[in-house]
Parts: sequence; structure tokens; C-alpha cells
Amino acid sequence: MKKGGKPKPSSNPTAAMIVIGDEILSGRTLDLNTNTLAKKLTHIGVQLLQVRIVADLKEDIIESVNSLRTNHTYIFTSGGIGPTHDDITADSIAGAFGVTIDVRDDAKKLLATNYKNGEKDLNEARLKMARIPEGAILIDNPISKAPGFCIENVYVMAGIPQIFNVMLDSILPSLSGGDPLISVNVKLSYPEGEIAECLKKLADEYSDVSIGSYPFYKDGFYGTNIVLRHRSRVVLDKVEVALKESMFKKYKG
Amino acid sequence: MKKGGKPKPSSNPTAAMIVIGDEILSGRTLDLNTNTLAKKLTHIGVQLLQVRIVADLKEDIIESVNSLRTNHTYIFTSGGIGPTHDDITADSIAGAFGVTIDVRDDAKKLLATNYKNGEKDLNEARLKMARIPEGAILIDNPISKAPGFCIENVYVMAGIPQIFNVMLDSILPSLSGGDPLISVNVKLSYPEGEIAECLKKLADEYSDVSIGSYPFYKDGFYGTNIVLRHRSRVVLDKVEVALKESMFKKYKG
Repeated sequence: MKKGGKPKPSSNPTAAMIVIGDEILSGRTLDLNTNTLAKKLTHIGVQLLQVRIVADLKEDIIESVNSLRTNHTYIFTSGGIGPTHDDITADSIAGAFGVTIDVRDDAKKLLATNYKNGEKDLNEARLKMARIPEGAILIDNPISKAPGFCIENVYVMAGIPQIFNVMLDSILPSLSGGDPLISVNVKLSYPEGEIAECLKKLADEYSDVSIGSYPFYKDGFYGTNIVLRHRSRVVLDKVEVALKESMFKKYKG
Repeated sequence: MKKGGKPKPSSNPTAAMIVIGDEILSGRTLDLNTNTLAKKLTHIGVQLLQVRIVADLKEDIIESVNSLRTNHTYIFTSGGIGPTHDDITADSIAGAFGVTIDVRDDAKKLLATNYKNGEKDLNEARLKMARIPEGAILIDNPISKAPGFCIENVYVMAGIPQIFNVMLDSILPSLSGGDPLISVNVKLSYPEGEIAECLKKLADEYSDVSIGSYPFYKDGFYGTNIVLRHRSRVVLDKVEVALKESMFKKYKG
């Protein structure tokens, strides 16, 4: 897969995602959270630059968090904050920041609202979900109440897609975004090997427009989706016309 | 998401995956190749330990390849080997290994078979797909002929899922796998916060069995899928019975 010109979002905030869970690495579960996050970040002008999927291993989580958090504006994690003894994300994050972790009263109270008998239903396993690293801010979970949390620039969220989504929606308004890219998709029934030279010319002429070329193969035929991205609708319209004219000249001219 | 006991595949080969492409990071495209790879590796007893999704940036690709290839038996990449000027995977891999890269005759011949007029149809853009790093072995692509390649322990494949799949199928028989894990799924209609203590006991008793606990939330109800993994069917049957007995005792006893 490929791109023509690159977007120039150098002033935009950047992000990295860490997906935690053996179930993704064994193939049992298809990771959907990265795609959800990517779309929403693109929409608010935050550029997702790297994703890592790591196993339920404390040292792997700590290494990923610490190698990414200083180079990006935001880090998002999904997975590993449930009640079983191998849900190790919260403790790993505390380890990465070198802070203590314990059951916190406000988290415990939130959690209790999810059960018929309130705090009485909080057995040892459930209390684990109220363990929050020192200094963290809670992230609301309207579905099952067990909160996520944010520590410095690291946002720790659940792995279950529905809960990841609502947690993400609750923090998005607090993030500083950049100028969102607008995109236009032009579907062409030509293989990209034929149109690559036209695209290269276009990318050279409009060097501040991102020109993505995505080949597809369906029912025995090759085609290409061209995705144009820029912050200005006027510029996009101009490039779209130029692209269509160059195709017309090549194939019908 | 979480695990009970961990599998003990220490003697099994390990792998890492590098997904290359801005389209994954922008959310335009959902990455399916990781899940395909993960399932097939699990089946042959190779443990996928990490995945990185990186942008179409040469330095990011080189950094990922070089930081992963010495720690894992196999590295797989997907994406960025097409004909446009921003398909930079092959050149980045050559950069990572410090070897030269050029159009290679055998790759050119394979590629030519995909076009009506053979080599006459190989324009500059298409010839790019025959650029192969020095010393690499080609990976067959029966669909669009443009080959992938393998250099040392790094397998470089296409991003289009259909082509990634056939390339993967053609290399799988050449990989040295380990003992495959067999798995059993037990679906329980109890939230994991209630059953975590039973699971912990089971995980302590059968410490060489991987006991994964995957909560789900559907139509307002919480449940848990328990995935048991081991190399012996006899052991799995024993743990499955023990799990069901402990649930019976807790809820019906």
C-alpha cells in the first residue's frame, strides 16, 4: 500500500496506541480498537504514528509505554484492566511511571454502583478493578463502571470494544487536536501500475496534498482507490479535477 | 482482557509482525493481516509475541525491523511493496540489512507473466516491484505475480489481504513450527468478576495450562468465554471437567 505526497501535519499532535492481550496475538480476537481510535484521532487532527500489540507480560507493557510516551503527545492503551489475576495493565503502568498503586476510594465507589448490593458485592477480584496508580485521573465507564485512568499523557482503557469506545468518547473532548484533514476518495478501474506515473506527476505538482493509492483486487479485476487528503476543500477540489483530467487524457484522449 | 496460567511455549519459535501503511494508522483500512498471521502461526506452534503498525516512513520501518529481528525467530511484514513511488518497504528492508537493492531478472520475468505483452508492459512503476534486496529469496505470488521476498529471518509480503494470504501459505511449510496448542472454549453466562476466584484456583492447580478469560457484553448481559489451551487433549479434557464442576458447585450446589 502506498502514498503519494505526505500530509504535512508537523504541527499536529501525535499519538501511539498499545494494544495489550494474548488473545489478539493468538488470533482468537480481531483487534477493532486500533481502527476506532485511528478514525477518531484523524477526525480531530491527531496523527496516530505507531501501534504496538503486546502480550500480557509486564515487562513488555512497561517497555512499550516507556519507549513511546516521551515521543508522542498522547499514548492510548486497550486491554488488561479486568478483574482476573492476570489483568496486569494497571500495575504495569504504575511500574512504567515508578509510582505506587492501590485500591482508590473514588474508583471503588464508582465500581460499587454496578452491583446490586453495592460495596458488599466487591470481592477481591472485583476490587482489583479499583486499583489506580498514584496521581492518575479516572476515565468514566458508563457501561460497566470499572474506570479507566489517565496518568500524564497515557490513557488506559478497556479492551472490550463497546467499553473502549465509550471511554474514548469521554476523553476526546479533553484532547488538543490539530487541523483535521479532509479526504476525497476517487475509485479508478485501472491497476496502479498503469497510473503510478500520472500520480507521481500529481504528487510532485501538489506536494502539500497527501495522495494515497490503494490497489484492490475483486472478482479477477484490479482497480485503485485514490485518497486525496488536505486541510482545504478548495485545494482538494482542484486536485480531484486534475486527477480526473489526467485519467481522461490517458485513457480516452 | 486477561489470562489465567500462561502457556509454556519457551521452546517454541517466536515471531513478530510489522504492518506497514498510513492507511491503517489513519483508520481508512482495518488491518486483517495480523489476525490471519496470528491464527496460522498458532496452528503451527509459532508464538507471535509482538506486532507493530508503522507509517510509510523509511526510518520507522528500519527501526522496527532492526529492533525486532534479532529477538525473534521470524519477522513478517505486510504492505508497501507495490509500484508507486511511495512504496518503500523493499528499499527500507535493504537499508535495515545494509545491502544493495536493484531490479532482479528472475523477479522481472515473474512479473512480466502478469501482463499481456510481457516485459514490454513493464513500465518504470511496475519494474519497481522487481527491486529485490541482495541475497533475498523470492516469495511466490500466484495472484498478481509481483513477488515478496525473504531475507535472513524477515519475510516481506504484500498488504492486500488476498495476496498476503497466498504468500503466507506458500512460506508456511518452510517454517519450523513447534508443538501446536489445542484450545477449548467454554462459554459461561456469569461475569468474570464472579468467577475470577474459581479461575485462579484452577490456574494454580493446572499451572501448565493456559486459562484465558474473555468477558463479553451482549444485549445488556455480561458473560465470559474461558479458553483453555494445552498441547495434550487428555489434560484439556480434565481441566474442562474441573471447570464445569466448579461452576456447578458455585451456582447449583
